[in-house]
Amino acid sequence: MPALSSPAPGVQSANFRFRCIACGDLSDAANQDFRCARCGDLLEITYPRWKEAKPSPETLKAAWSQRRISQSPVDLSGVWRFRDLLPMLGTAPDEVRQIIALREGNTPLYELPRCARSAGIAHLWAKHQGMNPTGSFKDCGMTVAATFARRAGFRWVACASTGNTSASMAAYAARGGMRSLVLVPEGKISWSKLSQALDYGAVTCQLRTDFDGCLRLLQELVRRAPVHQLNSINPFRLEGQKTLALELLEQLDWKPPDHIIVPGGNLGNSSAIGKALLEMSELGLISRLPKLSVIQAEGANALVRTLRETGGQRLVSVQAETRATAIRIGNPASWKKAAHVLEATGGACEQVSEVEIAQAKAEIGAEGIGCEPASAVTLAGLKKLVKRQFVKPEESVVVVLTGNLLKDPDFTIEFHRGELFKGSADENASAMLEPLRRAPIVLDATLDAVIRTLEQAEKS
Amino acid sequence: MPALSSPAPGVQSANFRFRCIACGDLSDAANQDFRCARCGDLLEITYPRWKEAKPSPETLKAAWSQRRISQSPVDLSGVWRFRDLLPMLGTAPDEVRQIIALREGNTPLYELPRCARSAGIAHLWAKHQGMNPTGSFKDCGMTVAATFARRAGFRWVACASTGNTSASMAAYAARGGMRSLVLVPEGKISWSKLSQALDYGAVTCQLRTDFDGCLRLLQELVRRAPVHQLNSINPFRLEGQKTLALELLEQLDWKPPDHIIVPGGNLGNSSAIGKALLEMSELGLISRLPKLSVIQAEGANALVRTLRETGGQRLVSVQAETRATAIRIGNPASWKKAAHVLEATGGACEQVSEVEIAQAKAEIGAEGIGCEPASAVTLAGLKKLVKRQFVKPEESVVVVLTGNLLKDPDFTIEFHRGELFKGSADENASAMLEPLRRAPIVLDATLDAVIRTLEQAEKS
Repeated sequence: MPALSSPAPGVQSANFRFRCIACGDLSDAANQDFRCARCGDLLEITYPRWKEAKPSPETLKAAWSQRRISQSPVDLSGVWRFRDLLPMLGTAPDEVRQIIALREGNTPLYELPRCARSAGIAHLWAKHQGMNPTGSFKDCGMTVAATFARRAGFRWVACASTGNTSASMAAYAARGGMRSLVLVPEGKISWSKLSQALDYGAVTCQLRTDFDGCLRLLQELVRRAPVHQLNSINPFRLEGQKTLALELLEQLDWKPPDHIIVPGGNLGNSSAIGKALLEMSELGLISRLPKLSVIQAEGANALVRTLRETGGQRLVSVQAETRATAIRIGNPASWKKAAHVLEATGGACEQVSEVEIAQAKAEIGAEGIGCEPASAVTLAGLKKLVKRQFVKPEESVVVVLTGNLLKDPDFTIEFHRGELFKGSADENASAMLEPLRRAPIVLDATLDAVIRTLEQAEKS
Repeated sequence: MPALSSPAPGVQSANFRFRCIACGDLSDAANQDFRCARCGDLLEITYPRWKEAKPSPETLKAAWSQRRISQSPVDLSGVWRFRDLLPMLGTAPDEVRQIIALREGNTPLYELPRCARSAGIAHLWAKHQGMNPTGSFKDCGMTVAATFARRAGFRWVACASTGNTSASMAAYAARGGMRSLVLVPEGKISWSKLSQALDYGAVTCQLRTDFDGCLRLLQELVRRAPVHQLNSINPFRLEGQKTLALELLEQLDWKPPDHIIVPGGNLGNSSAIGKALLEMSELGLISRLPKLSVIQAEGANALVRTLRETGGQRLVSVQAETRATAIRIGNPASWKKAAHVLEATGGACEQVSEVEIAQAKAEIGAEGIGCEPASAVTLAGLKKLVKRQFVKPEESVVVVLTGNLLKDPDFTIEFHRGELFKGSADENASAMLEPLRRAPIVLDATLDAVIRTLEQAEKS
């Protein structure tokens, strides 16, 4: 067992420290499970040097802009371009060379004029994180967490996931010359979702247990063997995901939108975006805070219930069920961080039905921009926030699309073939989706038949 | 039939003209079928003004670099950033606003150190066109062709394709407020490949005929109804695809690699890259020509046979069969253009087996970079070109990856489950792929079982 026999190395800090989100304990190193050594809650990364020497917003903006014409791999990364606000172990050229990057970030900001009209607002943009190298927002965090894993001497990284996390982890591990391990419950394997991790060479174990059993075993493994865990409680991942908000504000010429709306699953992304907004405000990069709102599927509404039933004091877990698989999480790890940033920015939390998700996804697609179902909850939620007048018609809104259309082609196909809600409780409600469906038509190969089809389509 | 009743508008030229690749006839407008009115061969786009006033290479390079820090949609496009070498109807702000763009291009150039070693060369890069908005190189051409279709007044665009072309066409049509029509033979529908076109709102007709029948009907349709054809003989598409080479050379600081290697299917992309190289040389942007080589699957080797059996004088069509579906084309439309640029740059044409494709795809994946099977022919072909000493060990090589890993998850899954060649003639030959396979392992949920698996994996 050559590589596994070395002692688990600690994570050393440089421009950053770890802070417990509950008891506030500060430390220079974190345990392998990334839990506070005193109280067991989650850690976040903090930058104590900003107290003494706050970087100037003008200097930062100019540096970030200039790096856009550089051809250096670290500047070409839409994450590391913002490294002044990221954990670093140093700035010397050899430090920068050790960064594992795939040119993540650099994602487009698309205007959605027709979705804006459908929601009843004037200005709507989509920040499309599904355009990342492995097709989801996870890449922005993984480049940071994988870099630190390798710097700490690890040759193995691991997570419990069958979806976007395992794909991203496997890609960055491969890129960095590390091995990766994916733990999934036996029988719960989704082959198409696993195809990426397999391609990038991950070792996949189907364990004879449920998902919580996989998570428990992962915790045990990272404590006992030199395997680094890349699940979303790894605070380095959240630091990388922060850059979504930095890049967005740069794209908007540092004029904050009134609202940013994000899907809520494990709530790491909401937490990261919120942290970025608060830090940007602290550093004077923006003059006012956008309201950050989180949308969940009705069938996976742990944060909605936590806020409603306990005022955000205690997590209400749920048995998650939704076709938006990327947010099918009943027990979100980062719920406390997310509750904090919602409160700090004045955002809302809303839930949407399966039919509302399917409708919103088709509307986004009709603008020429695909996304996975979980991303579409943002538009569906926006509509509800407009109805309850939380979002005003003249306000500017950015929805965050978190995953690529190609992550879940089955959803799209079943939708257009009218099979998505067949036999489900939503079957009647889904009749309203009929005008959005584009099932292929079988025709004789004649000009008349095709022209008649075009005429029909023009009327619909 | 309101929109279809207007007469088919002609395509007007501005900074460009159409030239027939066979008889050389020059014209300001093209027929709807994009065939030479005199001899029926393909058209290409040419820029007569370069004769009088050649743009200076220094001015172009500086302008292209500066546009990288612009936030204007036309500059954010990795295609239109190079608009000085593209067909334009004018440069006024309102002209530029009419461009239909999804921030295509801007694709990464990845180093592939392990694949380089495997091929026996020192320097290998991958230009990854699968990182485009709809996941394939088609987007770079479609932004130009869709823009001209709308400028000419069309409300409908169409193609015969079930794959990357229909996905890209449907996205740009939707983005530009046009409708799109996809023609496919009945029974030959691949649902997962169609999911994107459906999502973007395309109308899909399954015709009771074969693929050639679909193509014939499309030709008839565009002559008789105001529907614009976006198949690959549309020369505007090739102009957009040219920018792949411009962006690549910019990424290499205008130092040409010794070789560029591209998959060969319909041969539009090879033609476009070759055209770009010749134009860059003509304009003094590069001081020497890289050799452009084309790799085909053995089962779809029309260009290989055309060059070998007729010296490039006459197309040898084949009955195409390969799992690399994006290049499963027996009758490539742009064979004459491709044969020309191969000769002009001194490139080679090679074919590779299904097993070689699968191996190359797994090797690229193991670097943390996924691609669709058709893209992997480039690495497989490179190995053969090194063996026959056409590529020297010290030479620099760029392979073009044309499609995203997520375009064909089934291939990856079947590969890792050992099902890809089961029962086929390649079953024995594929035994050598065993070490690359990562089929998931079923285990008891114990620490010992997982650690034993990691130890096993380290030995393999």
